[in-house]
Amino acid sequence: MTNSRTRVGIVGAGPAGLMLSHLLHLRGIESVVLEARTREEVEGTIRAGVLEQNTVDLMVETGLGDRVKAEGLEHHGIELRFGGRGHRIAFDELTDGRAVTVYPQHEVLVDLIAKRLADGGDIRFGVSEVEVHDHTTDSPYITYTDADGNPHTLRCVLAAGCDGSRTETRKLIPEATIRQDHFRQYPFAWLGILAEAPPSSEELIYANHPRGFALISTRTPQVQRQYLQVDPNDSVDNWSDDRIWSELHARVDGDGAEIKDGKIFDKSILQFRSFVCEPMQHENLFLAGDAAHTVPPTGAKGLNLAVADVYALSNGMAEFFETGDRGRLDAYTETVSPRIWRTQHFSWWMSSMLHRLPDASGFDHRRQVAELDMVTRSVAGRTLIAENYVGTPLD
Amino acid sequence: MTNSRTRVGIVGAGPAGLMLSHLLHLRGIESVVLEARTREEVEGTIRAGVLEQNTVDLMVETGLGDRVKAEGLEHHGIELRFGGRGHRIAFDELTDGRAVTVYPQHEVLVDLIAKRLADGGDIRFGVSEVEVHDHTTDSPYITYTDADGNPHTLRCVLAAGCDGSRTETRKLIPEATIRQDHFRQYPFAWLGILAEAPPSSEELIYANHPRGFALISTRTPQVQRQYLQVDPNDSVDNWSDDRIWSELHARVDGDGAEIKDGKIFDKSILQFRSFVCEPMQHENLFLAGDAAHTVPPTGAKGLNLAVADVYALSNGMAEFFETGDRGRLDAYTETVSPRIWRTQHFSWWMSSMLHRLPDASGFDHRRQVAELDMVTRSVAGRTLIAENYVGTPLD
Repeated sequence: MTNSRTRVGIVGAGPAGLMLSHLLHLRGIESVVLEARTREEVEGTIRAGVLEQNTVDLMVETGLGDRVKAEGLEHHGIELRFGGRGHRIAFDELTDGRAVTVYPQHEVLVDLIAKRLADGGDIRFGVSEVEVHDHTTDSPYITYTDADGNPHTLRCVLAAGCDGSRTETRKLIPEATIRQDHFRQYPFAWLGILAEAPPSSEELIYANHPRGFALISTRTPQVQRQYLQVDPNDSVDNWSDDRIWSELHARVDGDGAEIKDGKIFDKSILQFRSFVCEPMQHENLFLAGDAAHTVPPTGAKGLNLAVADVYALSNGMAEFFETGDRGRLDAYTETVSPRIWRTQHFSWWMSSMLHRLPDASGFDHRRQVAELDMVTRSVAGRTLIAENYVGTPLD
Repeated sequence: MTNSRTRVGIVGAGPAGLMLSHLLHLRGIESVVLEARTREEVEGTIRAGVLEQNTVDLMVETGLGDRVKAEGLEHHGIELRFGGRGHRIAFDELTDGRAVTVYPQHEVLVDLIAKRLADGGDIRFGVSEVEVHDHTTDSPYITYTDADGNPHTLRCVLAAGCDGSRTETRKLIPEATIRQDHFRQYPFAWLGILAEAPPSSEELIYANHPRGFALISTRTPQVQRQYLQVDPNDSVDNWSDDRIWSELHARVDGDGAEIKDGKIFDKSILQFRSFVCEPMQHENLFLAGDAAHTVPPTGAKGLNLAVADVYALSNGMAEFFETGDRGRLDAYTETVSPRIWRTQHFSWWMSSMLHRLPDASGFDHRRQVAELDMVTRSVAGRTLIAENYVGTPLD
């Protein structure tokens, strides 16, 4: 049994855990990050990534900006497509020059890990049996088995649960008596493909079509990421490459758009869920990111919401360590909750407005297209989408 | 059997029929309006009325403005109330000075009837057994029994079905083969009261409360109109005056608002429906207003949509009579349909955002309040509500 001590023990080296450790470091607060996967696994798990202006700004301001500025693809708009026509939401005009940056999540993690290590940060990969203890006292500790199989105890002042949607730390907040879980399942899923092909569009296309939703996005100039709305019980086995391309053409082509076919090298089905647990704090344990909430992918908000959480959390923790005052720290849930719920709404809204619902009537379909018409023909409507898509300023 | 002849035979002396007759007259086109009720019944049926800026502007421009400008109450905003707080939607700031005017529908009818009669218009009240014939030919005619019990035949070139939601004329457009009906029922209703009391608020209050929706509106400085969300199967018999006042206080009071009690002299239950039929034309028969569509009352759009219909229809008819060209006339459905569906969406949106749905989960409630938060905290969100509430310019 070996022992160590730090101020903040962080469970999970995803965007929430690593960014928290990074922001705390900038305030002079030591932390240790514990991660079950190896560094290679963390850096090698290909994930989508649309970064809000807030997220990019925070990266740039805190010394993480070099690669995202050089390699990220800045997008100044998206297209909403319905009734066979494209309608651009011009972020730059509608939001005073704010934009999103397409830069995959695993690249953000690569940058964060490199920066933490360069700054002398302590990330312990490949650990197992991680358990947070005594988080309701002023001397919590975390036990785990290190990568070499040795048991270890990490003492800390505060603990952070950043262990993603399969979180163990969330379970430490007693359900019902303290923790309320809010959950919603959606009656559709996405079939996602990765293809070697040139981009079909310079900007993302969100298409509402009688055959179902489609999303055209890009990873790199050579690799495209595209999605089709499918039934949640559907399987990739039902989707030959030919069927996928023909469906993408049917749902998107026309009015200046044409899907460019290529070689599909990955197919998967993504389920749609919304989840929020509250409070996100239990005494000296704090949840952040997917450990506390999940959004459906339509709004591209998962990573950004994690960053917004730990921005507020690091400010609360820093104030506590600097002054002993717990006010801001204990207001953590209250601080981040409005953004989380607005983001849940935005993700639900984009999902509801763009997908064809299996039990929708003729009235519902027409109303949905009228909603897209109302929103896209109005500067105010386009601005409401744009400002939420690029992200409202951090709290 | 007596006979007469006109250019446009109009069935129904509601807002659609009378305004159509008025607008046609201004273009030099003769019409006859047939109405089953007596003039006293038409003028005496108390109805709500929130007039869009468009509607007031059209009334003023066409010589109907005196009373609405003198007696109508101009409202420059509404309040959306949720989480115990009021949030003002300031129409004047958000829409370049546009406003709505509270002026009951029956007063609009009084003005229209007086104006039509002063202009030599032909409105035949108290008729029965009205039937439109041969509307697919170029010599349609309408048979009816006049107020004295005599049969009559009215020959016309075009016929207009403006006979409200209990329309007979709609049935002349063959269902399924030509006419598509779109219908939606809502899982709530309104208990509406009229009370002798001073106004509880200078502007309308739309309140989302865990106990259900409430709407505070005013008729005159002495008479107030207030609504409570109830179950569609509820009955006024279950609602004592005491219960109504206590429920209004519970749903609305606080943050500067306080319901002022008074003597309730009318209670009724209003059902919530959305309905649209398309096309709104079959050869030489044209539907307008409630004969073609119904909106739930949340957006206060019924009368305004009828006026928008007949504005477009009168333009099409005038062009036809002036030039013989049917282009604009036959584009009637296409011209008005986008506004009708956007208005259906707006009414659905206001209804969905403000009412508590009986089958809603905890997630749904929180998302709904987050939607109100997202919309009211954003200038763009408030503008989107304001511009739809005051009405987008006529087509």
